Amino acid sequence: MDTVTIKMLARELNLSTAAVSKALSDSHEISESTKLRVQELASKLNYIPNAYAGSLRRRKSNTIAVVLPAVADSFFSQAINGIESVAEKKGYHVLIYLTHESFAREEAILKDFQSGRVDGILLSLTAETNSYRHITDLTEKNIAPVVFFDRVCDEIETAKIVTNDFESSYQATRHLIDCGCRKIAMLSISNHLSISTQRYAGYKQALLDAAVSYDPVNHVFTGNDPASDAVLLKQVLGKKDRPDGILATVEKLATAVYLACKESGLLIPRDLKIIGFSNLSSAAILNPSLTTVTQPAFDIGKAAAAILFDVLEKKNFNLGKAPTVLPSELIIRGSTIAGN
Amino acid sequence: MDTVTIKMLARELNLSTAAVSKALSDSHEISESTKLRVQELASKLNYIPNAYAGSLRRRKSNTIAVVLPAVADSFFSQAINGIESVAEKKGYHVLIYLTHESFAREEAILKDFQSGRVDGILLSLTAETNSYRHITDLTEKNIAPVVFFDRVCDEIETAKIVTNDFESSYQATRHLIDCGCRKIAMLSISNHLSISTQRYAGYKQALLDAAVSYDPVNHVFTGNDPASDAVLLKQVLGKKDRPDGILATVEKLATAVYLACKESGLLIPRDLKIIGFSNLSSAAILNPSLTTVTQPAFDIGKAAAAILFDVLEKKNFNLGKAPTVLPSELIIRGSTIAGN
Repeated sequence: MDTVTIKMLARELNLSTAAVSKALSDSHEISESTKLRVQELASKLNYIPNAYAGSLRRRKSNTIAVVLPAVADSFFSQAINGIESVAEKKGYHVLIYLTHESFAREEAILKDFQSGRVDGILLSLTAETNSYRHITDLTEKNIAPVVFFDRVCDEIETAKIVTNDFESSYQATRHLIDCGCRKIAMLSISNHLSISTQRYAGYKQALLDAAVSYDPVNHVFTGNDPASDAVLLKQVLGKKDRPDGILATVEKLATAVYLACKESGLLIPRDLKIIGFSNLSSAAILNPSLTTVTQPAFDIGKAAAAILFDVLEKKNFNLGKAPTVLPSELIIRGSTIAGN
Repeated sequence: MDTVTIKMLARELNLSTAAVSKALSDSHEISESTKLRVQELASKLNYIPNAYAGSLRRRKSNTIAVVLPAVADSFFSQAINGIESVAEKKGYHVLIYLTHESFAREEAILKDFQSGRVDGILLSLTAETNSYRHITDLTEKNIAPVVFFDRVCDEIETAKIVTNDFESSYQATRHLIDCGCRKIAMLSISNHLSISTQRYAGYKQALLDAAVSYDPVNHVFTGNDPASDAVLLKQVLGKKDRPDGILATVEKLATAVYLACKESGLLIPRDLKIIGFSNLSSAAILNPSLTTVTQPAFDIGKAAAAILFDVLEKKNFNLGKAPTVLPSELIIRGSTIAGN
């Protein structure tokens, strides 16, 4: 059976298509008895209005977009759950767009939104993003409100939900120092992304406060390819003056360090202590269990979605204000203290 | 600045909106010189046609939907990567919709597609799904082609990409028997989903062929809530006559068994051997490392997307044929043989 159209309803009821259309949108120009006839037939034949036609009138898609680097990361997958917990109550669809850490993809996705495809956007930037024209193109033209979460940019005045990256990185570095580490490496994915610069600043401050020397060679930048990251980590851990502690600022990097240690014959925590920013449920069953900075991922997603819906419901795009900060937690396990 | 509209272009150029619209769609009714004037101004002012208006004419959204239970699962996240590797080349957007194993959500999402929101659908069913009207509503009315991957249903004649669930489950069960297990439990999420029935049949056949007795109590059904699954697993492992081997048919269940063993003081593999259907990159660094049935997740996603685009490009919705089967691999590690 073909899709039921207004034309088919009109033919069946011996009415004009305009009259059917008006009856379906409950127009005062149409009598109640005609409306009833139209609505009964539409219901009987399972008539569904075309989404695009509806949206053209209303300019409303009842969808929000979540644009983020990856879903194979427990932070992001838990944040999505938080976002959906809010969107479901509002009757909105959540569309997930993956950038895979590519600025070009992020640009293409946001450019597509200019056509009005979604009502609002929750955005966590790629590691490559360092210009923001593709975002201001949306916000300045009032096309769709944008709320940042986790990976934000300071240059755009809009709502931002973050965790206390400076403090949690400071605390984690301090814990490594307290465990006896003196050559602490930090693994980063970017030198400009807000989370990276904040975590780097916290790390450096902790070294400074404890009078532990800082060596720029220990600030290691990884890429987006597991194979080349593995080679890089093997080099870092194979050096004569190799690190005795590692702070991995992204979940996948902690797994990569474990695998590199296994290959290099280094024992965690005896030869190397490691802390990962991670929400992995398997952290406790790794060999050894992983000390983590665990972010409030679900709550970050939930808070970001709640702010976005506030905006959508009030049609107010003025979101410039201080970021909302939800604290992370340092959970100490066996990768920093044996037997934990 | 407000969004640039056809009306604004018309005013600026002293033309009718109809003329501008025709010029933008390269109509033969408009002179080349006028087309040039319109296109130059449109380009200068960064005019973007409204997506819904465009779609209404073309009935084409240049998007495909991936509908699946979860992204916090390495099988699904790798399958998404496979799908995107194809869609990107075709210039299509991939929208990800999560059902969270809820049939009601799956129904609502597919009902929304009836309005023509997407051009094609890649679908992996929820554990709850056992009626298919919401799917045939799309396929029978030729609204959008549907290609199944991994969690398919036999009742609908369309393309399906699966792995060799019967054989890999048979092989895994056989491996547990070879390692000395005689009371092997199988953890399932459904008693009707294709992957579950196939894996169950493979498990039973392996027991039969090895003359190992089958006890229905060892076919354990888990839910979608980690807390109640933990309670259930603690009961299963706390029984006097507890299993000595476990085949976990979903990735998250393997992690749950490790955590339950840790709490119950059971040692893997001494007291309990376990195999998980899993694509986790951390399988090798768990304590002990996890023996897995590893599915060709990326290739399954890629193959499903390739078939969908074949259909989209030929506008042929007739997909009824035998499923495409890509084989999984049993990777033996420390959870079944100590020291591996």
